[in-house]
Amino acid sequence: MAVYTDISEDDLKRFLAAYEVGELTSYKGIAEGVENSNFLLHTTTGAFILTLYEKRVDPGDLPFFLGLMQHLADRGLNCPLPLARTDGALLGTLSGRPAAMITFLEGMWLRKPEAAHCREVGRALAEMHVAGEGFALSRENALSVSGWRPLWDKAKDRADEVQPGVAAEIAAELDHLEANWPSDLPAGVIHADLFPDNVFFLGENLSGLIDFYFACNDLLAYDVSICLNAWCFEKDGAFNMTKGMALLSGYQSVRPLTAGEIAALPLLARGSALRFFLTRLYDWLTTPAGALVVKKDPLEYLRKLQFHRSVNTALEYGLTISEPDA
Amino acid sequence: MAVYTDISEDDLKRFLAAYEVGELTSYKGIAEGVENSNFLLHTTTGAFILTLYEKRVDPGDLPFFLGLMQHLADRGLNCPLPLARTDGALLGTLSGRPAAMITFLEGMWLRKPEAAHCREVGRALAEMHVAGEGFALSRENALSVSGWRPLWDKAKDRADEVQPGVAAEIAAELDHLEANWPSDLPAGVIHADLFPDNVFFLGENLSGLIDFYFACNDLLAYDVSICLNAWCFEKDGAFNMTKGMALLSGYQSVRPLTAGEIAALPLLARGSALRFFLTRLYDWLTTPAGALVVKKDPLEYLRKLQFHRSVNTALEYGLTISEPDA
Repeated sequence: MAVYTDISEDDLKRFLAAYEVGELTSYKGIAEGVENSNFLLHTTTGAFILTLYEKRVDPGDLPFFLGLMQHLADRGLNCPLPLARTDGALLGTLSGRPAAMITFLEGMWLRKPEAAHCREVGRALAEMHVAGEGFALSRENALSVSGWRPLWDKAKDRADEVQPGVAAEIAAELDHLEANWPSDLPAGVIHADLFPDNVFFLGENLSGLIDFYFACNDLLAYDVSICLNAWCFEKDGAFNMTKGMALLSGYQSVRPLTAGEIAALPLLARGSALRFFLTRLYDWLTTPAGALVVKKDPLEYLRKLQFHRSVNTALEYGLTISEPDA
Repeated sequence: MAVYTDISEDDLKRFLAAYEVGELTSYKGIAEGVENSNFLLHTTTGAFILTLYEKRVDPGDLPFFLGLMQHLADRGLNCPLPLARTDGALLGTLSGRPAAMITFLEGMWLRKPEAAHCREVGRALAEMHVAGEGFALSRENALSVSGWRPLWDKAKDRADEVQPGVAAEIAAELDHLEANWPSDLPAGVIHADLFPDNVFFLGENLSGLIDFYFACNDLLAYDVSICLNAWCFEKDGAFNMTKGMALLSGYQSVRPLTAGEIAALPLLARGSALRFFLTRLYDWLTTPAGALVVKKDPLEYLRKLQFHRSVNTALEYGLTISEPDA
């Protein structure tokens, strides 16, 4: 949950004067996102999300994030649209922080997604990859292969606190991934954090994608591998091939994976499992004991990583190979 | 901020099936209240607050709280109205907790209220006291004079950690208040926690009162004294007589205070200052250092208490005595 900065109604009214959103009738801090402060606003013209960007977000990245949402929405993707101020800017200042007004997207994220939802997610991810083409700005992925070792160096000495033997296993894994990470696969703008809480549904229909604050330029299939990790494992740790098949076929119904992407998928999935293992491990080791933040178990991702290491081909994820000339 | 319990969209849909609120389109945990989990829901028919009552609330008190809101709303007070389920009940169960659906009240609480707002608050408090007449249920005030010593006994040994000399000062104050607390003043249903964050405004107009979870039966003028403490002091600790005058005259425009109430007001204000001092002191001493909860300074209320001790008559609060026969 996240409301790090309270705002006064006077400051808010001054801030809103630069937008054409009608009269403010209520605002509530909401428990959404972990990096920023978010408020749900009602005005005489509708509902909006107001986001105050807190310290963990680099202000230099905001034009990329907001511009990307605008670019994607312009191309028909269902995602929040940053409102332009009357001076044309997408970004203002509120309570000393960069702040943006964003359209409110109705929908709910699924605590227990089923295979049919995974298919919708795969399709939406591919639609995002296609819609992202031509976006003028770019942003390096700080949490891709080159970013893992610096993160690991900060945590490795205490990694065995989580489970004995982890330090050696991850060191070997990191060596392997660095040595074998592909560089010749299709790249573009990826979401990089498309977990269930960032995908809204209305009934069985996907109503939109949110939270583009990890978006960056990277291998498109790496984004697919993140979704395999985020959507296709059961609570008991087992990979659900029905969900994997649904997610991959949904993706391929919009953008077929290349032979190179398919071959690399198990390795990419090891990489994305390692990425979430590392950030969770770091948070686990550095979050004070009394804090109210829910610590996410890094071992969940170690187990996923181990599963991907056992995978020989993407067929084991449920991939259905379509005829090349079909 | 408060969201202690996450809820799944499936559980929520089952819960909502007992209400006539249309189709759910979104729900967000909101940072409102400190005792319960609150969600802002959008449905095809409007906006609602869903409250899950957490451990600190006695389930036996819920019929009083919800029934009171219904009673007050029926009598025209602007306050949230609990929705009845199709079986007539005001209370259901969600995620193992008692839960209620309540109408969403548009409006914003004021971070910097002015005298004109204090007048509106005084008027609304009196309207609530009048509207509360005839409410069938009753609830003792656990945080009135008889509740202070048990609270003090839990904190007194460490009170001087907050400021040397506090223990002796409060012990003497408590003796004085217990010996002189009035019992013959008009009583009824009081809000007991009408701080700025529980009063909503739209522009300059008060749009409603919220959060009746401290409401109880007690002296009406004690509720007035709580508002003097909550609304009429400046950040620097000074009492603002203009605000006091506005609050009291707003109150008296609806319900004139009796001579006995006026005479008792300084003592009642000492009591309500002590009540908030004691709960803040207790929280201060028992909240773990790493917790993300904002600790409120108990000394703010010690200074208010000291001010009230210096007050001889309610005229010093800005009370305007109207002619008895006017």
